[in-house]
Amino acid sequence: MLTAEIIAIGSELLTSERTDTNSLWLTEKLNGIGIEVKLKTIVGDDDARLEETIRDAMKRSRVVIMTGGLGPTEDDITRKIAARAMNRRLLLNEKVLEAIRRKFFDMGRQMPEINSRQAMVIEGAEVLDNPHGSAPGMYIEYEGRSIGLLPGPPREMRPMFETFVLPKLIAKAGDVRVVRRVLRVVGMGESAIDEKIAPVYTQYKNPQTTILFNRSEVEIHLTAQAKTESEAELLLDGLAGQIEERLGHSIFAFRGETMEEVVGLRLAVGGFTLAVAESCTGGLISQRLTEVPGSSVYFMEGVVTYSNDAKIRSLGVDSELILKHGAVSAEIAEAMAEGVRQRAKTDFGISVTGIAGPGGGTEVKPVGLVFIALSDDAHTEHRKLMLPGDRHLIRWRASQAALDLLRRRLI
Amino acid sequence: MLTAEIIAIGSELLTSERTDTNSLWLTEKLNGIGIEVKLKTIVGDDDARLEETIRDAMKRSRVVIMTGGLGPTEDDITRKIAARAMNRRLLLNEKVLEAIRRKFFDMGRQMPEINSRQAMVIEGAEVLDNPHGSAPGMYIEYEGRSIGLLPGPPREMRPMFETFVLPKLIAKAGDVRVVRRVLRVVGMGESAIDEKIAPVYTQYKNPQTTILFNRSEVEIHLTAQAKTESEAELLLDGLAGQIEERLGHSIFAFRGETMEEVVGLRLAVGGFTLAVAESCTGGLISQRLTEVPGSSVYFMEGVVTYSNDAKIRSLGVDSELILKHGAVSAEIAEAMAEGVRQRAKTDFGISVTGIAGPGGGTEVKPVGLVFIALSDDAHTEHRKLMLPGDRHLIRWRASQAALDLLRRRLI
Repeated sequence: MLTAEIIAIGSELLTSERTDTNSLWLTEKLNGIGIEVKLKTIVGDDDARLEETIRDAMKRSRVVIMTGGLGPTEDDITRKIAARAMNRRLLLNEKVLEAIRRKFFDMGRQMPEINSRQAMVIEGAEVLDNPHGSAPGMYIEYEGRSIGLLPGPPREMRPMFETFVLPKLIAKAGDVRVVRRVLRVVGMGESAIDEKIAPVYTQYKNPQTTILFNRSEVEIHLTAQAKTESEAELLLDGLAGQIEERLGHSIFAFRGETMEEVVGLRLAVGGFTLAVAESCTGGLISQRLTEVPGSSVYFMEGVVTYSNDAKIRSLGVDSELILKHGAVSAEIAEAMAEGVRQRAKTDFGISVTGIAGPGGGTEVKPVGLVFIALSDDAHTEHRKLMLPGDRHLIRWRASQAALDLLRRRLI
Repeated sequence: MLTAEIIAIGSELLTSERTDTNSLWLTEKLNGIGIEVKLKTIVGDDDARLEETIRDAMKRSRVVIMTGGLGPTEDDITRKIAARAMNRRLLLNEKVLEAIRRKFFDMGRQMPEINSRQAMVIEGAEVLDNPHGSAPGMYIEYEGRSIGLLPGPPREMRPMFETFVLPKLIAKAGDVRVVRRVLRVVGMGESAIDEKIAPVYTQYKNPQTTILFNRSEVEIHLTAQAKTESEAELLLDGLAGQIEERLGHSIFAFRGETMEEVVGLRLAVGGFTLAVAESCTGGLISQRLTEVPGSSVYFMEGVVTYSNDAKIRSLGVDSELILKHGAVSAEIAEAMAEGVRQRAKTDFGISVTGIAGPGGGTEVKPVGLVFIALSDDAHTEHRKLMLPGDRHLIRWRASQAALDLLRRRLI
């Protein structure tokens, strides 16, 4: 298997507010053609450190991808230092210069003199056209290594990599295709899932299985390698099927879909409509559902009844019931779900009431206590939850549980 | 100025779904005491590459912080390789072993034999206690370098760094304090802001100014260096005051607060209450407002009226008005804001109606057309917006504009 290193260049990437996202995208693309990323470096506009980084990477790995530092200013040092690390000259390429000039001309501007720096090309490099910016990229074969110099902005880097670099790497990597599939699970912990499915997935080296925890969901990543994509898909089908046998409906997505997409699709396919009544989640469920394009087909109305008064007035919840059980109770959750369904005249109504914290908790009703309910024209049911985490996580987990309650009803 | 390098260790950090967040946090802490981060490396569980990485880092930088790879399993190689890179021995520390045993005992379990690996300590290292996990950290002075080995999980790494490593580095860094302040601006583009404030901030080397674009907000980061924190704060006050003179109320936060925090605080201080009516933002405004702890004091009710029927029934919007102007119109936005305010009996009502896309646009009312409105007992006003971006961004920008309309009224 070929190995690669990625070098992200630019002092701004060494501040606490910027993170290098290019390398995640590049890693996925490289993995997809069977190339493993072994090291990533983030280095500032520092000649000596960058030169050493490039030399080390070329020594260790067959593929080296650099991003950033191809701009026109003094601190864009990638061209110069990469040339130095390869002991090659940097030459002005008249054709590239002319192309950059033309780009500026087409925008009705004259090329600033400093941009001529971007026409400096490493001896022997192939120049990679950049339709989305002024900085061209470069591809160099150097002592059996494949070296790519790509611009930093993702919208320039990505098409350049896919158009020019990827085909060359595919040719080098040979007949290996890697396909990944993400299964998402709700309502089960990481170790409970592992206990159930380890007997299955440990029997396979291909596909490989990774279990990742992500807020309130567990993701099962399956990665298969084969000579063709369809062969890899077949391998994935086999293992995914066995995992499904063990986890059943706890798997809510087989292709990485979100919970709101899955619920939305089931509502749309069934021709059902939905209304939502929220207290502690404060609009999060409505917001998640309506983030999905086309959700207006099934999502009719949402209410965020934070005050008791709003619960009584907008959802027809009985004030006596609130006095008797408190706003955070199974009774009120059910009354809210029924109320919003009747008010909006929808097939389903879901509701949440709870204590997201940090304040408002008591010994009897602590922070994290949440009731969710689901109502249709036949009956209304609720669940009592004790959710761990901070305000943000409790809200998110409550929204997930409420959507999941509906999903299971729709199966 | 001291320079530092950060090494994140673990093969999972080289996949496309995991990103190293520890280094951002560490960078902020190191910058805060005047230490500059010059290079970051992410390396897998690979003996040779890790050893070379550690050696190079120690050669170049006075401070080297490693995170991860301190677990009990075979692929946790940091202890072993760091010792090798420093040509020091790795010795079993009985006291540490006993402490790990006790931790398991306190949880009612016996220590698995593999965890004894975590009691191996580099010769001459100070052992750093880990109250949040089983892996102790290490701090080593090596040829004038400060080397830290910290666990990967942020909740273990952060307190350990702050308790044990930071004080030592402060002593080394000397009398330098770096304080950062984040100003956040709404409703102005990056270049428009730069044009207005460049004449001011370019006069200062200290504080340093960086302008960052972040969804629909522009952030102005000011970083001041001085011998004490209060001196640095004074420098920041000076420049921030001059920037405020130029940008006025477009600055909505002077200490990095979110828009919903700023609006919430003004509502709370004024003793005002609020209700929200949303169409295309689908609950996002309510969700943002209620993400703030204590928001139940001023946030009374939200409605997500996606269907026309819901607008008519729940907000008392005149059906004739919808027929005449369409649901996405200034008239309907104002009627929604008035309707929700009267229904919830609050001081203010805000509303949004628009076309978030990708479908639903027409030539007359394209995707991105959004109306926002604000109503109080004296009058109702609206704004018409043409927002760029995809569905997600249009929704976010619309929510931001609506909150900003209220903020300006509250000034």
